[in-house]
Amino acid sequence: MKVKYELIYNDGEARCGLLHTNRGRYETPMFMPVGTQATVKMLTKEELKACGSAIVLSNTYHLWLRPGEDVVAAAGGLHKFMNYDGPMLTDSGGFQVFSLADNRKIEEEGVHFKSHIDGSSLFLSPEKSMDIQQKLGADIAMCFDECPAYPSTYEYMKNSVDRTLRWAKRCKDVHNREDQSLFGIIQGGEYEDLRRYSALETVKMNFDGYAIGGTSVGEGKDVMYKMIDYAIAFLPEDKPRYLMGVGDPLDILEGVERGIDMFDCVMPTRIARHGNAFSRYGRMNLRNAKYKLDFTALEDNCDCYTCKNYTRSYIRHLLVANETLAGRLLSIHNIRFLIKLTEDIRESIKNKTFSTFKENFIKQYEGK
Amino acid sequence: MKVKYELIYNDGEARCGLLHTNRGRYETPMFMPVGTQATVKMLTKEELKACGSAIVLSNTYHLWLRPGEDVVAAAGGLHKFMNYDGPMLTDSGGFQVFSLADNRKIEEEGVHFKSHIDGSSLFLSPEKSMDIQQKLGADIAMCFDECPAYPSTYEYMKNSVDRTLRWAKRCKDVHNREDQSLFGIIQGGEYEDLRRYSALETVKMNFDGYAIGGTSVGEGKDVMYKMIDYAIAFLPEDKPRYLMGVGDPLDILEGVERGIDMFDCVMPTRIARHGNAFSRYGRMNLRNAKYKLDFTALEDNCDCYTCKNYTRSYIRHLLVANETLAGRLLSIHNIRFLIKLTEDIRESIKNKTFSTFKENFIKQYEGK
Repeated sequence: MKVKYELIYNDGEARCGLLHTNRGRYETPMFMPVGTQATVKMLTKEELKACGSAIVLSNTYHLWLRPGEDVVAAAGGLHKFMNYDGPMLTDSGGFQVFSLADNRKIEEEGVHFKSHIDGSSLFLSPEKSMDIQQKLGADIAMCFDECPAYPSTYEYMKNSVDRTLRWAKRCKDVHNREDQSLFGIIQGGEYEDLRRYSALETVKMNFDGYAIGGTSVGEGKDVMYKMIDYAIAFLPEDKPRYLMGVGDPLDILEGVERGIDMFDCVMPTRIARHGNAFSRYGRMNLRNAKYKLDFTALEDNCDCYTCKNYTRSYIRHLLVANETLAGRLLSIHNIRFLIKLTEDIRESIKNKTFSTFKENFIKQYEGK
Repeated sequence: MKVKYELIYNDGEARCGLLHTNRGRYETPMFMPVGTQATVKMLTKEELKACGSAIVLSNTYHLWLRPGEDVVAAAGGLHKFMNYDGPMLTDSGGFQVFSLADNRKIEEEGVHFKSHIDGSSLFLSPEKSMDIQQKLGADIAMCFDECPAYPSTYEYMKNSVDRTLRWAKRCKDVHNREDQSLFGIIQGGEYEDLRRYSALETVKMNFDGYAIGGTSVGEGKDVMYKMIDYAIAFLPEDKPRYLMGVGDPLDILEGVERGIDMFDCVMPTRIARHGNAFSRYGRMNLRNAKYKLDFTALEDNCDCYTCKNYTRSYIRHLLVANETLAGRLLSIHNIRFLIKLTEDIRESIKNKTFSTFKENFIKQYEGK
């Protein structure tokens, strides 16, 4: 089946809905943990489920290079390969071509570039991305798009948006997997009319959901919020809206306020591996000497496995002693933190108290 | 309480017994996973328990340097600090002084050496080791011994054994924690009369258990087995016997055949991080390309979490993509493999079929 979005509550533009998928229905807004290489780094499916995970992401570009989409297909698809039985989403590879690969050469047909692993020459096109994603077999696939640098000139961006629209059409034309949804991606940089144009034209193609892309490529926060504002009014109410690559707690709040339903980001696991934890009082660096004799949990009211079982002192010791268990324990906490945030957000939308919730959260998080 | 050993079955010299500890009673022979820095690398207590773990080791030398024994004591001891509620054992630091530290200078009072972390000057003595171990608060502490290189001259070894005996006496004199057992360590290198002498003199001091040390410092397997033979006949039947630092499957079998009850080794987790798995057909290197499309479990009859949930193909992918989940999954399998081996050994001792079991295991393991 294709995913179906059902709006349940709203509070202003903020929406609380149900996303019906091949693998159950899940409430939105949701945070989606990222399993770049068919693994949310260090964690098992049981740990993800215990964090309240619904959709988990994986990366087309990375899986294409290693182990290869045919290996994943031979395993019975991505879910079976990595043993995650919840819904999954694969990105198109477009962002990785932009952020990881060298010597990009963008043509109408697709993009020539060099592998970030061995420098070999590669070519990715809308058709190739669809072929790989259909073999991977996630529940949701993404159109292959160009993700331009920020800032780009208006002229460059206009051409890029048009090309991405043509690529979206080519994706839709070749995508035929009935059990996989296909989302279109809105681009257009910081240009209001291009975002509107991209949204209107993409929506005309009638995708199963819509993503706002190019919002985590170096622009400031205010610009990012505007990029959402410029597009979201033109997205249909009965389809899910996904803000790609965004997962900072404050950005989630700003996104929800504007009507976003889905978020993903590598941040919770990446900052974990560097010793950082989210908390409602802001980020904590657990390497700090002040935690040496601190035998309390990361957060006193957190229901995650880490907070129920380990102290700040122990996690600091693991970090100082270069023990990878630290990254694992912090990843669990950070993913749970963001998912719990979306749970609290949903509750506040149901109660029509989202703006108060947002205000209080930000005040506490920023220590004001 | 002090640990108590209760012999239940024997088959020749091979013994199956019960070790009564502060934290329950456990069958021997047992394999003890090593948590060098208060963590069995990458794993949680739930995973260790699911592997069938009983006693878990930790290292006095490492914990002394990081986070410091006073931090662990302030946490309420090692069990609480690392959140492992099963029995624990700390080594004395003697082996790490030998294997890790630089510029050792051995005196009657103790050993001067340099930290392997920052090169700072350190001094460890029997009294200091006892002080640290009593603060760490494991269920079993080990006497501070000298672990000489292999080979050492007879004269050097004779002096070393005498010093280790004097150090053992000093350890016993200052050790006063009633809820902690103290084990003596037999040294003597490959010299039969020194092993006998060390055993007889150590046993005279009446420790709660006895370890055979210096058996994993570079000597060959035949020499190691002789080191056991030379000492074990002089150890009392009613005390546990621990072969330090040994955990190769074949060595466990040889040790059990000679009457050993306890084994420990970092090998299962170390080889895991390098991509290797134990199997009853010998070791597997999961990086091997032949596993690329192998969607079977590491071992078809293994009851570990890894074998029940992941394929060789997936684990190979994680290794090739440098994902640390691979080391975690392989560590679980390897620890379970050794613990399962000891379970099967115990069963064979009960059935008086140990020698057949050993013969068949070796034949299969060595592919003959």
